Amino acid sequence: MQKEDMILVSIDDHSIEPPDMYERHVPAKYRDLAPKVIRTPGGIDQWVFQGAATSTPFGMAATVGWPAEEWGRDPGTYTELRPGCFDLKARVDDMNANGVLASMCFPSMAGYNARTFAEAPDKQLSLIMLQAYNDWHIDEWCAGAPGRFIPIGMLPMWDPAIAAAEVRRLSAKGCPAVSFLEAPHAQGYPSLLSGHWDPLLEAVVETGTVLCLHIGGGMGLLKLPTEAPPDHSIILSTQIMTLVAQDLIFGGVLLKYPTLKIAFSEAGIGWIPFYLERADRHVKNQVWLHNDFGGKLPSDLFREHVLGCFITDPIGLKNRHEIGIDIIAWESDYPHTDTTWPESPELLWGELTDAGVTEEETHKITWQNACRFFGFDPFTTIAREDATVGALRARASAAHVDVTRMSKNEWRRRNEAAGIGVLSA
Amino acid sequence: MQKEDMILVSIDDHSIEPPDMYERHVPAKYRDLAPKVIRTPGGIDQWVFQGAATSTPFGMAATVGWPAEEWGRDPGTYTELRPGCFDLKARVDDMNANGVLASMCFPSMAGYNARTFAEAPDKQLSLIMLQAYNDWHIDEWCAGAPGRFIPIGMLPMWDPAIAAAEVRRLSAKGCPAVSFLEAPHAQGYPSLLSGHWDPLLEAVVETGTVLCLHIGGGMGLLKLPTEAPPDHSIILSTQIMTLVAQDLIFGGVLLKYPTLKIAFSEAGIGWIPFYLERADRHVKNQVWLHNDFGGKLPSDLFREHVLGCFITDPIGLKNRHEIGIDIIAWESDYPHTDTTWPESPELLWGELTDAGVTEEETHKITWQNACRFFGFDPFTTIAREDATVGALRARASAAHVDVTRMSKNEWRRRNEAAGIGVLSA
Repeated sequence: MQKEDMILVSIDDHSIEPPDMYERHVPAKYRDLAPKVIRTPGGIDQWVFQGAATSTPFGMAATVGWPAEEWGRDPGTYTELRPGCFDLKARVDDMNANGVLASMCFPSMAGYNARTFAEAPDKQLSLIMLQAYNDWHIDEWCAGAPGRFIPIGMLPMWDPAIAAAEVRRLSAKGCPAVSFLEAPHAQGYPSLLSGHWDPLLEAVVETGTVLCLHIGGGMGLLKLPTEAPPDHSIILSTQIMTLVAQDLIFGGVLLKYPTLKIAFSEAGIGWIPFYLERADRHVKNQVWLHNDFGGKLPSDLFREHVLGCFITDPIGLKNRHEIGIDIIAWESDYPHTDTTWPESPELLWGELTDAGVTEEETHKITWQNACRFFGFDPFTTIAREDATVGALRARASAAHVDVTRMSKNEWRRRNEAAGIGVLSA
Repeated sequence: MQKEDMILVSIDDHSIEPPDMYERHVPAKYRDLAPKVIRTPGGIDQWVFQGAATSTPFGMAATVGWPAEEWGRDPGTYTELRPGCFDLKARVDDMNANGVLASMCFPSMAGYNARTFAEAPDKQLSLIMLQAYNDWHIDEWCAGAPGRFIPIGMLPMWDPAIAAAEVRRLSAKGCPAVSFLEAPHAQGYPSLLSGHWDPLLEAVVETGTVLCLHIGGGMGLLKLPTEAPPDHSIILSTQIMTLVAQDLIFGGVLLKYPTLKIAFSEAGIGWIPFYLERADRHVKNQVWLHNDFGGKLPSDLFREHVLGCFITDPIGLKNRHEIGIDIIAWESDYPHTDTTWPESPELLWGELTDAGVTEEETHKITWQNACRFFGFDPFTTIAREDATVGALRARASAAHVDVTRMSKNEWRRRNEAAGIGVLSA
């Protein structure tokens, strides 16, 4: 097997919502109330909803086309972005250039967990727009490139019963996954242990939907020093997943819902063996606490319910058997700063080779585990021989996809000239 | 090499302070004001200081002699304890029975970081008692069994200048280590990044003293669900050390004090490779954040400054080279629930063997790294051939040390009959 023979399914990427997306999916009478992008006097493209700027700009989220010196948290304009961030055809070209067959895309303006809609005061209006987002994502973004995307829906976190209804609506539309806060109590909601989320969890289990917990939403669980540099929250974000695993296992959630499936999006995998060994040893040693997992250990429960995923993780790949070879998936994190685009195959292949991963294990890690977990058949539209890194890159090559990094200014010049990402008057 | 040939130096154990310890180390005029143990109407031995019960009883801290079903957090009486918890001669017998040559003992009643004295309102009195604790620990507990203990002093956390003076006093007495809060901001103090602790850090560096950060003090950094069972804080306590490492590295502490030495007491080691890989990748990838470690990576800084330590840690031993073979030490955690006493050699040897650890590496892990880090020569009093697990256990055998676990009631019966742990009238 060679690098070119890999098949890559990424279960964590991000779309930047196009400025005009809501108007095409909102009932006519609500169109004027839909989120809109305005150009601020400072020259920034800003999403506005219910009269306020949303807390989720897309600055740091869309650095993929730029040289690293230009990265940052500052919001910008659509024209500064590599078009693959928001334009479907350009995105598929970029996936081809990176050898990626299929991708699961979280939102940006809406927030990884629809935070924008949860923060806005009029929840009835929020629900309409959240559903418009979901419809755009499924019917336009994913359906527009058959076989290339695994849909993931957003939920109205403010009401578990309405969220449950949305899970059922999404499932009926063929959506196999929804995004859920890794630790709801980090954002002021009742915790996963509280029972508050039972209606939602029941709907998820009933429909076989996967709960995707994306890192970031739980940062409020950590009390960082007031002087902490920005590196702290970037580096420590994956550590929070140990707290989430603890809530799921020792908080009784996994015991209560034996078929619940949970993906730890962007959480890395190298931390898993230490946590599981410690949890198992705890249960065997601290018998006075009378933990009863029905004859199972915490590591058994974890492996029955969870799918881990990584961008780059040499120690995790070395310890793949202590993690569980069937619960590891891969992601590219396009278009964020941590993405390995457009050299994902080179970096991944190097790490797999260094760790001595076999061909059979490689297929599990790069696509089979993800496809099984999300019920996604990658070869319905594209034949297997056309789905490899080599075949997709040949396609990108034929289409002359240019992967050169360019400054924001250069992107702005080119995109404005081509009318890409320009706001309508 | 066989199990019996190991030499074991444990850098994290605990003494239970004997009830009469302060009266022998406090100036006469303060003797009446010293901490005292009273028997409560409920039959509990309770430490009282400055008119209030201290927040640090010894219940869960001293379960070593009991069957696991009797463990718990409840405070009890000295007579319920295995005498090795508080009696020096019995402790050395217990170390021999477990093949442990030397031990570093943190306090119990005083708190791992002298919390009892930091909480009491009269700080002048607290300082006198804290110094009495340190004198008892060094002059009586450690000096009473030459070659068997590595001293560790407690610091007055309420004043960095006074703490610095105590570091110098302790160093002059030959004490190579002090205990410090892993994350001061978890308990309302300024953080390690604040500059507040500079006088103390300067004294520590000047005297070559090791800062020992024991898990537990930083639990306040995690926002746990209100419904979390007690397992959460036990299992997650080691995770906090990633936050501490982050503060030390990205907060500038290690750069500012290039010779600072820090031991992560009871923190485990299996989490280290994932954290270091993530931190290194972050620095190489997120160049826009302009981290400058003088040409070094976070992993370099970590290995130059930190000593990790573990009780049981199969994945950490497997990944010893990704951690750093020179920064791993071992501990027995006597007399806590997590201790492996009296089968530490069996458990440790099994884990070393399973991980394929060589003889040279074994010596580094079980004693050489700890002795180098703390400047402790283990063979000044005891010849190397008398210092092995086999030799020490032969000594325990000759002294008929009984390691049978017994109920609290049985201990109470035996200890009361022998006058052990009985409060003076």
